[in-house]
Amino acid sequence: MSKKAAISLHRKLKGKIYVESKIPKITDENLQLIYTPGVATVCKEIFERPELKYDLTGKGNNVAIITDGTRILGLGNIGPDAALPVMEGKSVLYRKYGKVNAFPICLNTTDKKKIIDAIKAIEPIFGAINLEDIESPKVLDISNELVKQLSIPVFHDDRHGTAVVVLAALLNSLRIVTKKISEIKVVVAGAGSAGYCIAKLLNFAGCKNIIVLDSKGAIHKKRKRTNMDKYKLELAKFTNQNEKGQQLSDVIKQADVFIGVSGIKNLLKPKMIREMNTNPIVFALTNPEPEIDPVLAKKSGARIVATGSFRYKNKVNNALVFPYLMRAILDLKIQKITLKILYDTALAIADTVPKNKLSENHIIPLINDKNLQQRITKALMN
Amino acid sequence: MSKKAAISLHRKLKGKIYVESKIPKITDENLQLIYTPGVATVCKEIFERPELKYDLTGKGNNVAIITDGTRILGLGNIGPDAALPVMEGKSVLYRKYGKVNAFPICLNTTDKKKIIDAIKAIEPIFGAINLEDIESPKVLDISNELVKQLSIPVFHDDRHGTAVVVLAALLNSLRIVTKKISEIKVVVAGAGSAGYCIAKLLNFAGCKNIIVLDSKGAIHKKRKRTNMDKYKLELAKFTNQNEKGQQLSDVIKQADVFIGVSGIKNLLKPKMIREMNTNPIVFALTNPEPEIDPVLAKKSGARIVATGSFRYKNKVNNALVFPYLMRAILDLKIQKITLKILYDTALAIADTVPKNKLSENHIIPLINDKNLQQRITKALMN
Repeated sequence: MSKKAAISLHRKLKGKIYVESKIPKITDENLQLIYTPGVATVCKEIFERPELKYDLTGKGNNVAIITDGTRILGLGNIGPDAALPVMEGKSVLYRKYGKVNAFPICLNTTDKKKIIDAIKAIEPIFGAINLEDIESPKVLDISNELVKQLSIPVFHDDRHGTAVVVLAALLNSLRIVTKKISEIKVVVAGAGSAGYCIAKLLNFAGCKNIIVLDSKGAIHKKRKRTNMDKYKLELAKFTNQNEKGQQLSDVIKQADVFIGVSGIKNLLKPKMIREMNTNPIVFALTNPEPEIDPVLAKKSGARIVATGSFRYKNKVNNALVFPYLMRAILDLKIQKITLKILYDTALAIADTVPKNKLSENHIIPLINDKNLQQRITKALMN
Repeated sequence: MSKKAAISLHRKLKGKIYVESKIPKITDENLQLIYTPGVATVCKEIFERPELKYDLTGKGNNVAIITDGTRILGLGNIGPDAALPVMEGKSVLYRKYGKVNAFPICLNTTDKKKIIDAIKAIEPIFGAINLEDIESPKVLDISNELVKQLSIPVFHDDRHGTAVVVLAALLNSLRIVTKKISEIKVVVAGAGSAGYCIAKLLNFAGCKNIIVLDSKGAIHKKRKRTNMDKYKLELAKFTNQNEKGQQLSDVIKQADVFIGVSGIKNLLKPKMIREMNTNPIVFALTNPEPEIDPVLAKKSGARIVATGSFRYKNKVNNALVFPYLMRAILDLKIQKITLKILYDTALAIADTVPKNKLSENHIIPLINDKNLQQRITKALMN
């Protein structure tokens, strides 16, 4: 993978997606049905019975991938124009693996209220919203507000998708090292959307010893309140109950699992891995540059290593989640993304790896695993 | 064409468009280029040189078809949900004839300022805006405001597209009846976006005697100011200079051309056609139900009859314009839609009908005429 190759492919494609017609051949006859005058009947029908919009238009399969460009990958605030290649990439994956019509909407504003207003304004055409790469905690406020104000589901990939894929990978990793989730110590580096939801979902899954760190250090109830927003206060209620440690180098000691969603390259040092519990599990998930080079992590004693990149084995990337989970959300008309839904999805993904295939280098299915959709949809049916 | 057939086709399709990927097969290798980590290089490149967004993403070929659902076809204010089938139909035509990625955006607000704000917010992903079926004069304000505030072109189909197709059809009709545009009297019924721009474009093309009517009657300088918005005042400056007549039945007398963009079924009576000048030209363009049944118009003495419907001959529908004109706008990087551009486009369309093919029932090319694109693009190159 060279940088040149990425640029050159994008220059050739001029956009990775396009809007295609479902009408193979336009004739004077079908033009009267799909356009004027026939389409007027369809409009009137929806006007009289609004619920028919799901049967007579594409709304039910349209998803808006919405970003303001403030937190693109590990690149930070690069704005809506530079964010577009990522959103188009997501759209490709939505189509390929979820058969979803996902259209990128890169917003020309970073103002919370204006973002909410814009999304409310474009709601009619979409069956669901995917919030993407918007800075935290703003995005959590936006997401919560939209859940209240929209009548379509709000999926927040950095939060929901990442938490699901992490839990799925962790459940399988624990099977390999034969540890119970209720007995492990997990350190989560990063308290943005991903870290916030990973901690909540691990807690929901029965994990009792979680420590989350942000740029100021470990989060706990007694930390200076000025360094805590309401989401961090929420985390402090159930994480780091011994209120111990300030730095990663302290809290990593005797940890069973490190989960990096920090955005900081080379945050995790070899020495820290050596101070973890036996059979350390290291998920260095920041993209494009992980918290530790996976080869170095292995050398330093990590039993299981994963990254968020498709360059290495154990691709713990939310791309494994969002196309399939969104397909299920749309098909099953799921209105609200709950921790139960995320947990069931994670379990379904973990179980997709056959027991005899499970290994240190295969803790998670490949993105194109043919069984993923059916398993996830089935898991969420109940 | 039955109403049932239209509903049933839409029910089968569940949306007439979809978002497709340009990547035929996803592999671990190209996933690293189109998604993480490779895409980060592309993002950084655009961040450093914003103009590259046109080379490295689909922005330059993405068009937003924006409506608030207030003036859908002849159906009126049916809201954004019921508007969607029309917008999807336009998107199909954009793809089919213009190779444009047009995505419908039906807005959940009818407030002028909120509409402008929403469009400004979603600008980054689009190469042009197509305003559609928004009530007038609000839409003219919106359009003018957007031209000032956006850095991408604003095409207003009800205005620009309709005026172009009308002028094209009229130029060819005049060739048949051998009248000069500078010598004819034209009555335009309807002073919404279409009527407003038709009058302006006819005037630009050299037509000196134009009378425009709205629901209150003929527009002229001495009419009660309370019945005049600023766009009607603008029309009054160059139309109906004799300040004559109140009703259509008055002003239609001795007219050479009737152009109906009124939204009113059966507005034009046979008696009125009989009172027009010799070789009357009747364009009854309201959809889905024209100002007069075209067969009745012929019977009543009209020499040339056209409608906006694909059900009859002489399909004077802006669908003949918008896909091709937008393709030219995007390819030639036209920033502002001027009367000159509209005039040149109309002339190019009119000239696409070969002289030996020109007849009373063939005043305008078919929508799938293979020469349309090349002729329009060439006409706008200078």
